[in-house]
Amino acid sequence: MLIRNGVLVGAEGQRRLDLRTRAEKIVEIAEGLTPEPGEEVVDASGLLVLPGFIDTHVHFRDPGGTHKEDFLSGTQAALAGGVTTILDMPNTQPAVTGREQLNEKAALAAAKAVVDYGLYLGATPENVEEAAGLANEVAAMKLYMGSSTGSLLVTEFAPLYRHFSTFPHDKPLVVHAEDEQSLQYFGALARPQSLASSTNHNQVRPPLSAQIALSRALAIAEKTGRRLHIAHTTTQRELELIQEAKQKGVRVTCEVTPLHLFLTEEDQQQKGNLGKVNPPLRSREDQQALWRLFDSIDTIGTDHAPHTLEEKRQPYAQAPSGIPGVQTMLPLLLNAASQGRVTLQAVIERCVTNPARIFGLSTKGALEIGKDADIVLIDPQKEYVITNEQMLSKCGWTPFAGTHIKGMIEQVYVRGALGYVRGTCIARAGSGKSVVYTQSC
Amino acid sequence: MLIRNGVLVGAEGQRRLDLRTRAEKIVEIAEGLTPEPGEEVVDASGLLVLPGFIDTHVHFRDPGGTHKEDFLSGTQAALAGGVTTILDMPNTQPAVTGREQLNEKAALAAAKAVVDYGLYLGATPENVEEAAGLANEVAAMKLYMGSSTGSLLVTEFAPLYRHFSTFPHDKPLVVHAEDEQSLQYFGALARPQSLASSTNHNQVRPPLSAQIALSRALAIAEKTGRRLHIAHTTTQRELELIQEAKQKGVRVTCEVTPLHLFLTEEDQQQKGNLGKVNPPLRSREDQQALWRLFDSIDTIGTDHAPHTLEEKRQPYAQAPSGIPGVQTMLPLLLNAASQGRVTLQAVIERCVTNPARIFGLSTKGALEIGKDADIVLIDPQKEYVITNEQMLSKCGWTPFAGTHIKGMIEQVYVRGALGYVRGTCIARAGSGKSVVYTQSC
Repeated sequence: MLIRNGVLVGAEGQRRLDLRTRAEKIVEIAEGLTPEPGEEVVDASGLLVLPGFIDTHVHFRDPGGTHKEDFLSGTQAALAGGVTTILDMPNTQPAVTGREQLNEKAALAAAKAVVDYGLYLGATPENVEEAAGLANEVAAMKLYMGSSTGSLLVTEFAPLYRHFSTFPHDKPLVVHAEDEQSLQYFGALARPQSLASSTNHNQVRPPLSAQIALSRALAIAEKTGRRLHIAHTTTQRELELIQEAKQKGVRVTCEVTPLHLFLTEEDQQQKGNLGKVNPPLRSREDQQALWRLFDSIDTIGTDHAPHTLEEKRQPYAQAPSGIPGVQTMLPLLLNAASQGRVTLQAVIERCVTNPARIFGLSTKGALEIGKDADIVLIDPQKEYVITNEQMLSKCGWTPFAGTHIKGMIEQVYVRGALGYVRGTCIARAGSGKSVVYTQSC
Repeated sequence: MLIRNGVLVGAEGQRRLDLRTRAEKIVEIAEGLTPEPGEEVVDASGLLVLPGFIDTHVHFRDPGGTHKEDFLSGTQAALAGGVTTILDMPNTQPAVTGREQLNEKAALAAAKAVVDYGLYLGATPENVEEAAGLANEVAAMKLYMGSSTGSLLVTEFAPLYRHFSTFPHDKPLVVHAEDEQSLQYFGALARPQSLASSTNHNQVRPPLSAQIALSRALAIAEKTGRRLHIAHTTTQRELELIQEAKQKGVRVTCEVTPLHLFLTEEDQQQKGNLGKVNPPLRSREDQQALWRLFDSIDTIGTDHAPHTLEEKRQPYAQAPSGIPGVQTMLPLLLNAASQGRVTLQAVIERCVTNPARIFGLSTKGALEIGKDADIVLIDPQKEYVITNEQMLSKCGWTPFAGTHIKGMIEQVYVRGALGYVRGTCIARAGSGKSVVYTQSC
């Protein structure tokens, strides 16, 4: 296949270049390439050519929560959002904490996924050795220092330290860094007050809780010398702590979600439970700090966490935390780029290049010869409004409904195969491949 | 009384000045003062005139451990060491956690002390309100995040946060910042190994444990806006964390002990249990960092913690942690000044001016008109060797026996009264006064 006349967006900037793919790979990038006999030609005139995005943080609810998402609907939503690789979190039912659950989920993903995928293993206080033994078969380990959806949780020092020191040090350990004790304390504090009042939401899961857990995780990472990736960083103070640790040589990287880049606690007041998420939406000051310190963000991951509207319509205390996002990340970032808030190069670094490097996805990355031909064609001028109806997630809603977007995803290719075109997923269930197997082959 | 011909050491430097005291106070400082009729005159020719030192961290074991120290022997050792004010820690038996024990200890101190004193209140998970109610009658609160000698301990987030937010914010909360969970974990790790081997000592109470607890304390202090004083900082990393917090506006100050300034883990290998202390003696690198970062140290406190030689002669695991030091602090620092490692002005800042300011001891401080006439006369040329026999502590030993010192304490005055002269305490038991009462009068 030859993609002609498009503007390639790479780490070095934007440049009119043609791109040739063959056998799932990018094989040639140059000016004015001539079609070979019988070669399919895509005219990308007026379009931007981007590498497929990598979302290293999704919850596809499969198995156990397939009324709200499964590997088919989730990866279709990803594909429609220009995300051609996802890493799925382990807090499904049952949680992926050992060989048996990993095999089960791998089979489900292989049968249903329309984008490439990797799976997380979940840490428990008991599975230190088993987790380390499975490291080569998973994308990373996820460790919850504070409780969220699901039952995975490691709060005590001893198993925490043992996971940090035992799980292979070069494989990412992704931490949900909230301190369970302070969550419980602030939760207990907030309970007597009106839980319906949005101003209490942050008190229930305060930034302090994240700072405490983060400090602990950084200290143990420094001691053990292991790699550490901090999930959903939400405040200026956390970014600063991480920067300080990096400067000291701690092998830490961090993620920010589009939710915390584009929404604040004021949005939560307006949206109610649809804005309920862990960690919670933060103040406008913290949101602005995430943009101001954008350079210090390593990856943007969606924390795509669908729940049905019915589940979200329960009273605040009962309503589950989590917001879908895998389909809206690229549109929101395209729009931010169109407004001059960020460059597309900086976005690709955080959504493609860095995730590929940090998670060791050697076949994935920027548009370069030898990489998988995961390609997204964008019309940078086309404008539209996000609606719930566009969403391919089973949950059927997005907090960004009504948001005006400049820049539309026209076509998405996964390893050279057209999977999505103007609103329709054409990829076949099971066409997605495990990036971890790819990696070890 | 008129002290003539001496060299006064003040914040601004050293200068030949005469100093007059009256009714316990310094009333005049000038060149060439003339004795008044009947006035006692002290000829300080060739001597340095220093303000009395303030040791904000001593364990005088009274009540409950008076076989190894009491308020008389402890304050005599202080006086002989040029320390004219001490603050006594609450982990006596019974621990000072409420009105009753505070009254009991105050009576003991009033009857026995030969230097001025203040008492600490100890934090427990239960005494949040009672502690806050007693704040005006104590010098500060001490909170143990990690266990040490005695039973005081607050490890859980909820009572920790409640103490931080409830104890008057401008009164110092002094924290023993070691993380109990990691202490237990590393202790458990070390136990199967040979506990007699000194190389394991640090593993039992690793710097990591201090970093974790310190991060937690700093985060809560930042959140609550309260003042926080970190006891016995021992490593470069801790000093850096504290500096970073200060730069962010956290109201934190920190203490370093002479033990950690003058001894290392190598000394512990040599001295065995006599070098066993919490936090432990650290590496030479950390010791050197304390000197390199001397500017960032707010106070030097001795953590004077006497145990008898009999107690120390038990096997390592059973031997209590703690080392005496109130009598040797000023000699060691004088000697360091004579070697050019530090200036006497910098020492006085950390042993007099800062302690007085941080702990609100308004009658104490540098040699200034209006302050208590707590004065130490030093012969900067006289040299001697520290011996166990010189020690006035009931424990009768010092890890610095054999250390050559240049600079000798000749006379010590407490509120204008001569209390110590060339090896002999002449102060009367009970002549010491509470600095807290002084403060509130």
